Amino acid sequence: MPLENINFHTRKWVRPEDLNANGTLFGGSLLRWIDEEATVYAILQMGNGRVVTKFMSEINFVSSAVQGDLIEMGLTATKFGRTSLTMQAEVRNMITRRSILTIDKIVFVNLDEHGKPVPHGYTTISYDRDRLPSHHIPPVPFGTEPALSE
Amino acid sequence: MPLENINFHTRKWVRPEDLNANGTLFGGSLLRWIDEEATVYAILQMGNGRVVTKFMSEINFVSSAVQGDLIEMGLTATKFGRTSLTMQAEVRNMITRRSILTIDKIVFVNLDEHGKPVPHGYTTISYDRDRLPSHHIPPVPFGTEPALSE
Amino acid sequence: MPLENINFHTRKWVRPEDLNANGTLFGGSLLRWIDEEATVYAILQMGNGRVVTKFMSEINFVSSAVQGDLIEMGLTATKFGRTSLTMQAEVRNMITRRSILTIDKIVFVNLDEHGKPVPHGYTTISYDRDRLPSHHIPPVPFGTEPALSE
Amino acid sequence: MPLENINFHTRKWVRPEDLNANGTLFGGSLLRWIDEEATVYAILQMGNGRVVTKFMSEINFVSSAVQGDLIEMGLTATKFGRTSLTMQAEVRNMITRRSILTIDKIVFVNLDEHGKPVPHGYTTISYDRDRLPSHHIPPVPFGTEPALSE
Amino acid sequence: MPLENINFHTRKWVRPEDLNANGTLFGGSLLRWIDEEATVYAILQMGNGRVVTKFMSEINFVSSAVQGDLIEMGLTATKFGRTSLTMQAEVRNMITRRSILTIDKIVFVNLDEHGKPVPHGYTTISYDRDRLPSHHIPPVPFGTEPALSE
Amino acid sequence: MPLENINFHTRKWVRPEDLNANGTLFGGSLLRWIDEEATVYAILQMGNGRVVTKFMSEINFVSSAVQGDLIEMGLTATKFGRTSLTMQAEVRNMITRRSILTIDKIVFVNLDEHGKPVPHGYTTISYDRDRLPSHHIPPVPFGTEPALSE
Repeated sequence: MPLENINFHTRKWVRPEDLNANGTLFGGSLLRWIDEEATVYAILQMGNGRVVTKFMSEINFVSSAVQGDLIEMGLTATKFGRTSLTMQAEVRNMITRRSILTIDKIVFVNLDEHGKPVPHGYTTISYDRDRLPSHHIPPVPFGTEPALSE
Repeated sequence: MPLENINFHTRKWVRPEDLNANGTLFGGSLLRWIDEEATVYAILQMGNGRVVTKFMSEINFVSSAVQGDLIEMGLTATKFGRTSLTMQAEVRNMITRRSILTIDKIVFVNLDEHGKPVPHGYTTISYDRDRLPSHHIPPVPFGTEPALSE
Repeated sequence: MPLENINFHTRKWVRPEDLNANGTLFGGSLLRWIDEEATVYAILQMGNGRVVTKFMSEINFVSSAVQGDLIEMGLTATKFGRTSLTMQAEVRNMITRRSILTIDKIVFVNLDEHGKPVPHGYTTISYDRDRLPSHHIPPVPFGTEPALSE
Repeated sequence: MPLENINFHTRKWVRPEDLNANGTLFGGSLLRWIDEEATVYAILQMGNGRVVTKFMSEINFVSSAVQGDLIEMGLTATKFGRTSLTMQAEVRNMITRRSILTIDKIVFVNLDEHGKPVPHGYTTISYDRDRLPSHHIPPVPFGTEPALSE
Repeated sequence: MPLENINFHTRKWVRPEDLNANGTLFGGSLLRWIDEEATVYAILQMGNGRVVTKFMSEINFVSSAVQGDLIEMGLTATKFGRTSLTMQAEVRNMITRRSILTIDKIVFVNLDEHGKPVPHGYTTISYDRDRLPSHHIPPVPFGTEPALSE
Repeated sequence: MPLENINFHTRKWVRPEDLNANGTLFGGSLLRWIDEEATVYAILQMGNGRVVTKFMSEINFVSSAVQGDLIEMGLTATKFGRTSLTMQAEVRNMITRRSILTIDKIVFVNLDEHGKPVPHGYTTISYDRDRLPSHHIPPVPFGTEPALSE
């Protein structure tokens, strides 16, 4: 699939703390970076700070990285559900010019203050910041864990 | 799918550093823990320390966790390829007794000292430690990144 | 002392972030892992999420580990006090098959919601999960630090 | 000073591990993020992976951030020296729309494989990736610490 | 400038997790350590736990460090404002005996429980602990971010 | 036992990442800090950068700390063996003025470049820096794990 309109934002410089015992990029670090980046993107698109990862489609690790490589992460919204957002993700190694992995679908759900799915009201991608919340987003009260099943 | 014969080993106690900004378990931390646990399991089954994550099938986040919850991770081998191993994974919240996520297929590849896929020679699960390498496993030499495409 | 009935659960894969400046396993990382694992075990045995480390007997570091080694941690309850639990711990290097350290006594104390020692009511080890709390355990209110002296 | 042509790339979602004891964004985390981002930018502009921070001009912390806020970091080259690059940096809080800090000058030095300053040969900003190194960058050999004084 | 009366307290042992991709001390780690150390010093001098970094003057990185080096950090108060404290900082490499960096001015502001600057009442350095708060310092309530502009 | 002549150097400011799930200082973080601090002290006394923790006597956790508290760590040499050094340690909470824990004996061993115990030649405490190594200390070659049993 061609990843058109994808915007690459966050970049990482692979340091020793990001390596696995083989001396290559630790897959766990990589997945951690993607999850954070996708959250930022979801907040920008759904206009709400209380969003959670609900689903990731299969991940094919096609290449890796070593200490000193530069990594960039890109995301683009592909489907707006009533209470959810589906994105496509790609991580690239800027040094080798190779894709590290692509994820066809990452689904985030928009939650209300009780942790329940709630409509976000959007149907198209924003390339601007018009949906950004303008107030701090308080954490979910303790014990109110998100209801992840819609 | 019934996860028979799955063994739950590593456990985590959810502390503030594992939380996302919503105050619930950060998905990135969770994926990091799974990747490490799967690596340990792959080394035990393929009898080689130089293994890499090649593929993860879709991940459905069905519930979450909060600070103070206990998490356990389980894995079981489901298919032995010539140079690869396929596993099934489940992460559970020991406090809520709910599944947090399951992953049907995590594929690891067995590599030689040049980072190339190499046959491991096994066809069945070991419940023992008879395949454990008995010498330290040196990291891949710098610049020799794993050839992840078989 | 023979460590009978000890169960090894959590496993670690030694990565660069776990090394000290000598290039061997950092003792501080090791102690951090043990403390977390012992907490999980204490919660399972005392049926309460609000437990704290009160005492550790002497620790003899008999061998170490290098990058790429696999580590496993085992614990077994050795004495049930009225408000406390005493455990025995061992950490092993799965690659060298050597013990890394043993701790004869790790004592945890069971606390009430005000941080005061409270009887747990158990006198024998559970090999099951019948004592696991079934609700989330809220943190101690700010400023209510645990009264560690019984 | 107007920060024209500045490009904001890396974004962060403020999680509990990024907070200081006051419950606001830890200045140390912030400075760590900027240093990493500036390194990526310096590599892209000087076409060399072996670069080090040499100088930062004064930093005025004009606002802060709380858990859940989104942060973005921007950099633009302002002066190309013979062996160095000077950049201007800004960090913004995407939620409050306020600047968090600006740094007028961050100077990076371009090093050869012995850790000595070496000319990079560029005099203008690249908005493309034409200077990106196309091979992995090996770390400086142990004991060869960078000669930071030009 | 001669750094008289400066006291070096906190020390660090440079481990792999503190390195950048070049294999030398990561500038971001260094800045993180300084910010924490300066906060401790500010609390000791202003007798209040709710303090924030407001300003840092220019930083000249004159030497670096490698894995295994020992680092020490020193601070001394140079000016007591009405609601602020100005300090001078130096970081040294104990192995090479060289200065790593000096910062002429780090300014901290003393805040009240609403995050507003408040007079601290001191005009001279304390070499004792007579100003140390004697009660725990609660974090700023969520959403009450510090007003950093005086 | 009176801890005379003990010098308190490194200080920590308890931040959210240092807390356990109860909201108090994580014992694992505490043990990590002590191990690092003791290593710095051992290098200063034995004049060698290649030192390892060999033994810790019992640890009594007599009080704890909460977010925002200041912690200080002190060590003093109590016995110089032929190849080892024995220290006494105390960790204090600067806010509550209470001892957090004391450790009567922490033993470090002095190693040669092959990881074998080697005489250090000292019999008394240095309060100066006359023994500090003046060259970088290369890590132990991969696979040469320290021989911890004397």
